[in-house]
Amino acid sequence: MVDKNVYFFGNGKADGHGKMKDLLGGKGAGLAEMTNSGVAVPAGFTITTEVCDSFYKNNKTLSAQLDAEVNANIKNLEATMGMKFGDAVNPLLVSVRSGARESMPGMMDTVLNLGINDQVVEALIRKTNNPRFAWDSYRRFIQMFSDVAMDVSKHLFEEALTEAKHALAEKTGRDKKEVKDTDLSADDLKQLVNIYKSIYKIAKGEEFPQDPMTQLWASIKAVFNSWNNERAIVYRQKYQIKGLLGTAVNVQAMVFGNMGDSSATGVCFSRNPANGENMFYGEFLINAQGEDVVAGIRTPQKISLESSKEWAQSNGVEESERVAKFPSLEELMPEAYAALIAYKVSLETHYRDMQDMEFTIQEGKLYMLQTRNAKRTGFAAIKCAVDMFKEGNLSEAEAVGRVNADQLNEVLRPIFDRKDKVKAASEGRSIAKGLNAGPGAACGQVYFSAADCVEAVEKRKEDVILVRIETTPEDIKGMIVAKGILTALGGATSHAAVVARQLGTVCVAGCGKIHVDYAKKEMSVGDKVIKQGEFLSIDGFTGEVIIGRIKTIPSEILQVLIEKTLPESESELYQEYALLMSWADKIRTLTIRTNADQPDQAEIARLFGAEGIGLCRTEHMFFGGDRIKAVREMILASDTAGRQKALDKLLPMQIEDFFGIFEAMQGFPVTIRLLDPPLHEFLPHQDAEVSELAKELNVSFEVLKAKVNSLHEFNPMLGHRGCRLGITYPEIYDMQFRAIILAAIKIKKNGKDIVPEIMIPLVGDVKEYTILRDNAVTIIKDELAKANVTMDYKIGTMIEVPRAALTSGAIASEAEFFSFGTNDLTQMTCGFSRDDSGSFLGEYVEKGIYDEDPFQVLDQVGVGALMRLSIKDGKAARPDLKIGICGEHGGEPKTVIFCHEIGLNYVSCSPFRVPIARLAAAHAVLKNK
Amino acid sequence: MVDKNVYFFGNGKADGHGKMKDLLGGKGAGLAEMTNSGVAVPAGFTITTEVCDSFYKNNKTLSAQLDAEVNANIKNLEATMGMKFGDAVNPLLVSVRSGARESMPGMMDTVLNLGINDQVVEALIRKTNNPRFAWDSYRRFIQMFSDVAMDVSKHLFEEALTEAKHALAEKTGRDKKEVKDTDLSADDLKQLVNIYKSIYKIAKGEEFPQDPMTQLWASIKAVFNSWNNERAIVYRQKYQIKGLLGTAVNVQAMVFGNMGDSSATGVCFSRNPANGENMFYGEFLINAQGEDVVAGIRTPQKISLESSKEWAQSNGVEESERVAKFPSLEELMPEAYAALIAYKVSLETHYRDMQDMEFTIQEGKLYMLQTRNAKRTGFAAIKCAVDMFKEGNLSEAEAVGRVNADQLNEVLRPIFDRKDKVKAASEGRSIAKGLNAGPGAACGQVYFSAADCVEAVEKRKEDVILVRIETTPEDIKGMIVAKGILTALGGATSHAAVVARQLGTVCVAGCGKIHVDYAKKEMSVGDKVIKQGEFLSIDGFTGEVIIGRIKTIPSEILQVLIEKTLPESESELYQEYALLMSWADKIRTLTIRTNADQPDQAEIARLFGAEGIGLCRTEHMFFGGDRIKAVREMILASDTAGRQKALDKLLPMQIEDFFGIFEAMQGFPVTIRLLDPPLHEFLPHQDAEVSELAKELNVSFEVLKAKVNSLHEFNPMLGHRGCRLGITYPEIYDMQFRAIILAAIKIKKNGKDIVPEIMIPLVGDVKEYTILRDNAVTIIKDELAKANVTMDYKIGTMIEVPRAALTSGAIASEAEFFSFGTNDLTQMTCGFSRDDSGSFLGEYVEKGIYDEDPFQVLDQVGVGALMRLSIKDGKAARPDLKIGICGEHGGEPKTVIFCHEIGLNYVSCSPFRVPIARLAAAHAVLKNK
Repeated sequence: MVDKNVYFFGNGKADGHGKMKDLLGGKGAGLAEMTNSGVAVPAGFTITTEVCDSFYKNNKTLSAQLDAEVNANIKNLEATMGMKFGDAVNPLLVSVRSGARESMPGMMDTVLNLGINDQVVEALIRKTNNPRFAWDSYRRFIQMFSDVAMDVSKHLFEEALTEAKHALAEKTGRDKKEVKDTDLSADDLKQLVNIYKSIYKIAKGEEFPQDPMTQLWASIKAVFNSWNNERAIVYRQKYQIKGLLGTAVNVQAMVFGNMGDSSATGVCFSRNPANGENMFYGEFLINAQGEDVVAGIRTPQKISLESSKEWAQSNGVEESERVAKFPSLEELMPEAYAALIAYKVSLETHYRDMQDMEFTIQEGKLYMLQTRNAKRTGFAAIKCAVDMFKEGNLSEAEAVGRVNADQLNEVLRPIFDRKDKVKAASEGRSIAKGLNAGPGAACGQVYFSAADCVEAVEKRKEDVILVRIETTPEDIKGMIVAKGILTALGGATSHAAVVARQLGTVCVAGCGKIHVDYAKKEMSVGDKVIKQGEFLSIDGFTGEVIIGRIKTIPSEILQVLIEKTLPESESELYQEYALLMSWADKIRTLTIRTNADQPDQAEIARLFGAEGIGLCRTEHMFFGGDRIKAVREMILASDTAGRQKALDKLLPMQIEDFFGIFEAMQGFPVTIRLLDPPLHEFLPHQDAEVSELAKELNVSFEVLKAKVNSLHEFNPMLGHRGCRLGITYPEIYDMQFRAIILAAIKIKKNGKDIVPEIMIPLVGDVKEYTILRDNAVTIIKDELAKANVTMDYKIGTMIEVPRAALTSGAIASEAEFFSFGTNDLTQMTCGFSRDDSGSFLGEYVEKGIYDEDPFQVLDQVGVGALMRLSIKDGKAARPDLKIGICGEHGGEPKTVIFCHEIGLNYVSCSPFRVPIARLAAAHAVLKNK
Repeated sequence: MVDKNVYFFGNGKADGHGKMKDLLGGKGAGLAEMTNSGVAVPAGFTITTEVCDSFYKNNKTLSAQLDAEVNANIKNLEATMGMKFGDAVNPLLVSVRSGARESMPGMMDTVLNLGINDQVVEALIRKTNNPRFAWDSYRRFIQMFSDVAMDVSKHLFEEALTEAKHALAEKTGRDKKEVKDTDLSADDLKQLVNIYKSIYKIAKGEEFPQDPMTQLWASIKAVFNSWNNERAIVYRQKYQIKGLLGTAVNVQAMVFGNMGDSSATGVCFSRNPANGENMFYGEFLINAQGEDVVAGIRTPQKISLESSKEWAQSNGVEESERVAKFPSLEELMPEAYAALIAYKVSLETHYRDMQDMEFTIQEGKLYMLQTRNAKRTGFAAIKCAVDMFKEGNLSEAEAVGRVNADQLNEVLRPIFDRKDKVKAASEGRSIAKGLNAGPGAACGQVYFSAADCVEAVEKRKEDVILVRIETTPEDIKGMIVAKGILTALGGATSHAAVVARQLGTVCVAGCGKIHVDYAKKEMSVGDKVIKQGEFLSIDGFTGEVIIGRIKTIPSEILQVLIEKTLPESESELYQEYALLMSWADKIRTLTIRTNADQPDQAEIARLFGAEGIGLCRTEHMFFGGDRIKAVREMILASDTAGRQKALDKLLPMQIEDFFGIFEAMQGFPVTIRLLDPPLHEFLPHQDAEVSELAKELNVSFEVLKAKVNSLHEFNPMLGHRGCRLGITYPEIYDMQFRAIILAAIKIKKNGKDIVPEIMIPLVGDVKEYTILRDNAVTIIKDELAKANVTMDYKIGTMIEVPRAALTSGAIASEAEFFSFGTNDLTQMTCGFSRDDSGSFLGEYVEKGIYDEDPFQVLDQVGVGALMRLSIKDGKAARPDLKIGICGEHGGEPKTVIFCHEIGLNYVSCSPFRVPIARLAAAHAVLKNK
C-alpha cells in the first residue's frame, strides 16, 4: 500500500511536478508543472495511475484510504476555489478527466460540469443570469454522466432531444429539419432535464443522483473502467503503447467566463504570430464562454489598449464608440490584465517560446486554462527566435531549434497581397484548389502550351501562367519562362512539381477540378471558362486558383539576396534570417548541396549557401536551344555511325554546359548524372507533332511514327533508361564522359580548381557500373593525356534501384561514392508510380497506412531500411565511401534529420530548399545531442 | 623441394588419379582417371602446378630435378607408344597443353604436333601417304611454336600465307579472294615451310630448332608463362578464381587417324541420345582426322554392322555397295570394334552415365581421345536413367539426378513430325524465329483477334493460331481456344508467355520479324504475307515460325495421363516417367502446388502431381461468360451503391468459380488471390471498341472514354492495383471474401474437406494487410455463423513489393502465410518492366551483367537476398509461418533448388511445370546431401 494516492494542485503549488508522468499521467504532470510555475490554473487533484492498477487488481474496487484522500482533497479544492460542492450560492463544479502517461486522445471517458443538481442549477442561473446556459449545462451533464458512468445509452437522451425539437417545430410551424439545438429556449431545456431524469430513473430504477460525491465516485470509476474499453485497447495495440500501469484521473474545478460582467474569456499570444513582433496580441469577450470567442457571433474585443485603438482606427470606429462598446481588457479589468501580462512574461520565460494561451476570468479572478507553444508563420518564427536570443532567453542553438525548417519556405516566396485575395474570394473568383506544389504567389495570362508561353513572354513581355493537364520534359522552355505552373494531374513529385521547385517557380499541381481543352485553348471549372490570354492567379502556399489578377509582392529575402534590389541594411527580416542561418551552419555537420542543371540555378543555390552540386541532370540540357534537334537525330539514327554523327554535334554544347556549371560552383564539387530518361521522352507522341517533326527532320511520317511506337513502353519507369542506355548505346555516355572531362580541363587551364564527379544512374548490378566506369576511365585518361593535364575526379553511382541497395557491398568495392536517388528508390521499394499513385495515396495517408506521402517525406520504415542496409554493406566494403542523397527528399526536414542519423555525408536539394536543409541539418545535430 | 614433379599416365596405369586436381590440374587429373579406369588414352605426363609456382618464385627458371624427371618421362612415353622423338621411321609427336584446377578455356597457350622437323616430316609423309597433311602440320607447328614459345608475331606467318595464296591465284588466273588455304598443294606448303623457317631465322637470329627436346622445353616454359598473361589474369578476376598455385603442363602423345587404311577416327554414343535406347550409336571415317567426320565432305560410316545395314536400307544402298563403299567398323576392324564396345561398357560403368566418346585408331590401335556425359533429349534422359537403374548401375536417387528437370518439358509437349519440318525448311517456309515461350508444336489457321479465333473454333471447328502484336487479359478467350499463340512483342514472362504456359498452350513470343496489321487482318515477314485463315505452324521448342501445315503428334505421356487415349501398359515412356517421378517424390521435401484459375487446369495439375493450388488468380474469372459485363458495370459505377449492385451480380458466379476449384482439388489446400490488376485492364482502349462498349452499356461514348482516360496510368505496374483496390474499393474484396467462404461452406455441406487460403496481393505495409484481414474475418465469421458451420481458413499475403520483404517482421506477426510473387518482386527489385525489358535484357545477358534472364531464372543475388531477409524476419516474428512462391519462377529448376535451400515450404507453378518442379525439388535434396 502506497502512502499517497492523490496529488493536489492549486494556489501556485502542486504536490507533484512536471516529470511525474508515469504516476500522474501526461495531463496531471502538466497541470502540476503549470501550477508550480505560478500559473493560476483552476485547482484540482490527480488520482495516480497506481490506483488504476490496484483498481484492476482488486476486482474493480477502490480502497478506504483513497476514499479518505479524495475527501480531503475535495475539502482543499473547495477552500482554494472559495466554492462548495452542491452549494446553493457558490457551487463548485468539476471536470473528471482521464490521463495516461501517453496521450490517447478521445479513447477514454470524460465528465464535465460534475456537481450540478436541481439546487446547483438555480445557483448557476443566479450567477450567470443565463437560465438557458444553466439548464443546457445540466441537460448535458445528465446525458454525459448517464452514458459514461452509469451505462445508460445516450441514444435514449438523443431521441428525447429530437422529440423536443420536433415539438418546437410543430408549435412554431417550422420544418422539423430546420430546428436546431440552439433554438430550444431555457424553458424547453428545463423540461428536457425533467424528461432526462425520468429516462435515467426508468433505466436505472432510481432517481438521478443529486449528491455530488456520488456523482464523483461513479465518474472516477468510469474513467478507470474506460482504460480497458475496446477502443483504448485497440489504440494501445495500434500505437504500440506498452508498459503503462493505467490511467490517472484528474478532478479539476470548472471555471466560467459567463458569470456576469466581472467574468470574461479570451485567447492571446505572447507575441504576434503573424510577424513575430513582441507585442501582446489577443481577444476576449465579457460574460462569455470560450467557444463564443471563436464563434464569430459577437465581435471580440482587443486585450491591450494600444491594439484596441489600432483596431478601432482601421475599422473606422470612433473612440467614444470604442470605449462604450469595445473597450480593451486593459481598461475594463486592469488587475486581470496585469496578471495576464505577468503570465505572458513568465510563461514565455518558463517554456522559452512564444505562447498561445486560453484564459477565463471568473468573477474578476483570472484562470489560465491552457498555454502552449504558439503556431506562427515563418516570418514570426524567425523574428521571435532571434529576438528571444537577443533578449537573453535563448541560446543560439535553442533559437535555431525554435524555427521549423519547412517554414523558411514562406519567407522566400513571392506572396499575394492579402486584402486583394480576400476581395477576390468574396467575389467568387476563387474557383478551385490543387496541391500546393511550388510555394509562392503567381499571377499572369494563361497559356496552354510551352510554345505559346515562350511567344507571349518573348514577343509581348507578358507574365504567363502555363496550364497543362500534366507537364513533360518537352514543356521545359515554357516552365522556365512562366511565373506559375498549373496542372490538372500529378502529385507533389510529379514532373511539374519537381521542376517548379527546382526553378523556384510557383506551382499548383493535380488540380482535378480544372478541365483543360488544348484544342479550344481554354480551361474550365464547372461553367467558368478561362480562355488563353486571360488572367489567372495561383497561390502555391495554399493551392488556390483564382480568376483574374491578384497583386504579388516578392519576398524580402530574395530582394536582398538574389535580386539585389534591397540593401541588406534595410531589411530586418534578411538580417534575422542571415543571423539564424549562420548559427545553423555552426551547428550542422551534414554538407548541403544543390540539384542544379544550369549555371543560373547553381548561382542562386550558392547564394542560398549550397556547398556543391549533388545532382546535375544532363537531360534538361538536351532541350535547350537547337539541341533537341541533334538529340532527335541521334535517337532516329539507325546505326552507331549515325548516332555518333549526331553526338558529335552535341559534344561542344555539352562541354559549354558543364563549363558553365563548373564555373558557377567556384571550385565546389559538382556531381553530374549521365543521361537518365528513356529516349522516347525526347520525341513527340501526338500525330500532329510527329508529322511536324517528320517534316523538320525530312523523314516520312510513317518512319518517325514507327520509331516513336517502337520506343513506347508500358512501364517507362522500369524501362530502357539510365545506365541501361549507356550499356546498349555506349556512344551516348562516351560523349558525356568526354564533355565532362574536357569542360573540367578548360576550367583547370583557366587556373581554377574543379573535382568533377561522374554519377551513373539506375545501376542495379556492379557489372553495369564497372563496364561504364571502365569506358569513362579510358576516355578521361585519353583526354587528360592529350591535354597534358592531371586532375582528380570521382566516379560513383546512384542507389535508386532496390537491387543496388541489396548488393551495395559489391558496388561499393568499385564505386567511389553513392548517392541515394530516393524518388526512384521510393517508387520501386513501395511499388508506387509517382505519376499514378495520386489515385490512392491520399486515402492511404488518411487511413494511416502511411503517415505521410512517401514522395514528400521519406518512408523511413521501408525505403529507410533499405538505405541503412546499403550504407552498412557499402561502408563495410569501402570505409571511406562518400554517401549522399539527391532525391526530392533531400530538402525535406524530417528526411534531412534521418539522413544525418544514418550517417550520410551530404544532402542535395533544389536551390530554394538549401536554406531549409541547412536549418534541418542543424536540427538533426540538436536532436541527437 | 618435392620428390616428384612429373606424373606419368599410359598403358592402363597413371601415377596420379582423378582427385588430384590441385596438383595436376583438371585436365591432368582427368587423363589420370581415364587411364586408371583402363581407357587407352594416348600416353603422356603431367608437370605439376607446384612447378609453375616454383617457376615464378625462381625468376622463371626450372630445376635440374625437373629436367631429369621430364627426360625420364619422355623415355617412358617413347617406350609406351613404341615411337621415338625425332625418329625418321616412327616419330613421336606430342601436344603441350595447360590445365589449372579450374578450367579457363582458351586463356592459356597450347602447342600441337611438337616434335616435327625436317626429318620427321618425311617420316610422316611415308606413314600417311599424305604429303599435303605432313607439310601442313609442319607449317602450322612452326607458326604456333614461334608465336607461343618464341614470341615471333604470328602476323608475319599469316602474311606469308596470304602471299602464297595470291601467287597461286596469279598462276591459275583466279580471283585472289577466292583462293583458300585448302587450295594450296603439298608443294605449295613445302615452299611455305621454307619461307616460315626464314621468317623465324630473321626474327630470332637463329635457325628454327630441329631438336624436339629444345622445342619441348620452350613450350613448357611458354605454358607456364601464359598463366600470368593478361587474358588469364582478367579471366581469373572476372570469375573470381582464387587460391591456385598455377597451371600444370600436360605433355601427351599425338595420335593420327589418317595414317593409312589401318587408321580411322570417329565419334560414338554409348546409347542413342535421341531416344535413350541401349544401342551403340556412332560414325567413323577410315584414314581421316577428327574434323573430317563432322565436316560433311565424306559420308561417315556406321560403327556397328546392324546400324550400317539399317542406314543402307533407309538410304536405298544395295548391300554389295554398302560392303564395298560403306562397311561398318565391326566388319573392317573387328578388334578395334571389340575394344570400343568394351570401352563403351566400362566407361558407362565408370562414369555411371551415357557417354559421348571421341576415338582415333592409329595403325590398328584404338585410342580414346575424350569421353564425356552425353547431351541427350528428355526422352533419352528418362529412358537411360530408368534403364541404368534396372541394369543395376544406378540407385533410384542417382537415376533421379541424371534427368535434367527442364527436359521433362520435352516429353509433355505435342511435337512436330520431324521429316515434315525438314521438308518445310528446305522449301523456305521457315520464315522467322521468336522466343520459345510455350513449348510444344502447334499448327492451325491464323486469326488476329480473340473474337475471330473463338468464332473459327466454335462455328467452323478450326484449329487456330492466335497472332497478336502482344496479348492482354482481354484476349483470354482466344488464347484458351487457340492451339498456339504467336506475338511480335514481349518476353518470356509477357502476358502471352505466362498464360500460355499455364494453359499448356504452345507459344512463340516476341517474334520481332513479324509485322502484324490488324486492319488488313494479315501478318508479314519481309515480302511474305500470311492472311487470316491461312495455315501457320509454330514450334514452341525452338521458336520457329513456319508457313503452312506441319504434322503434330501429341505427347505420349499426355495421351496416357490426361487424354486417356493410350493405355498405360502400352506406353513405355509413360511407365518410365511415372517410375522416375515416384522416386523423385520419395526424395523431395518441398511441396509442389500449382497455379490454376479453372477447375480443368486444377484437374490437370492434380494428374501431374500437384498437392494444392498456390495461386488462383481471380481476375481471369472476370473475363468468362457474361461476367465482363458486370465487371465493367462495377468499374463504371459512380458510387459505392452502383458498384455494390454490379458486385451482387458477380457474387453467385464467383461462388461457383471457387466451388469448382475446391472440388477439383479434392481437399488439397487452395490459395485464392484477390483481384490484382488495375481496373483499366477490364476496359477497352481503342476508340472503336470503346464506342461499341458504350452502345452495349447504354452510356455515351464521351462518358465511357472519359472513364477510360481517367483510369489511364503511366506505369500501371506501380499503379492502382492489388490490395490498393481493396483499400479504396473495399466492396470488391468483400464480395470475394464472401464468395470464397460461401463456396467453402457449400463444399463442407457436401461432406468434403477444404481449408481455403485467402491471399492478399501487393501488400507493402502491414496496415494494408490488417485492414483487409479484418474485413475478411468479419465477413467470414458472419457467413459461418449464418450457415452454422465451423471451418479452418488461413489469411496471408503475397510478398511481391520490396517494402513488404523489408517489413516482413511486422507483416508476419499478422499474416498466417507468405507467398513470394517473384514476378513483381523481380520487376520492382531490379527495376525491370517485364513488358519492356526485352529491349535491353538480351544484351545484359550477353554481356554477363545478368547470368540469365531474371524473369526466367530467379535472380538469387538481388531478389534472392531480399527473400532471405524476408524469411528471416518473417520466421522470427512467427516461427510456424508457412512460406511459398507462386511467381513464374516456381517451376524453374534452379529456382526450385534455391527455394528448397532458403527454407520454403512449397513452390507453386503452372500445371505443366508441376512434374519439373517435383523433379527439381528432388534434385535440391540430392544437391544438399
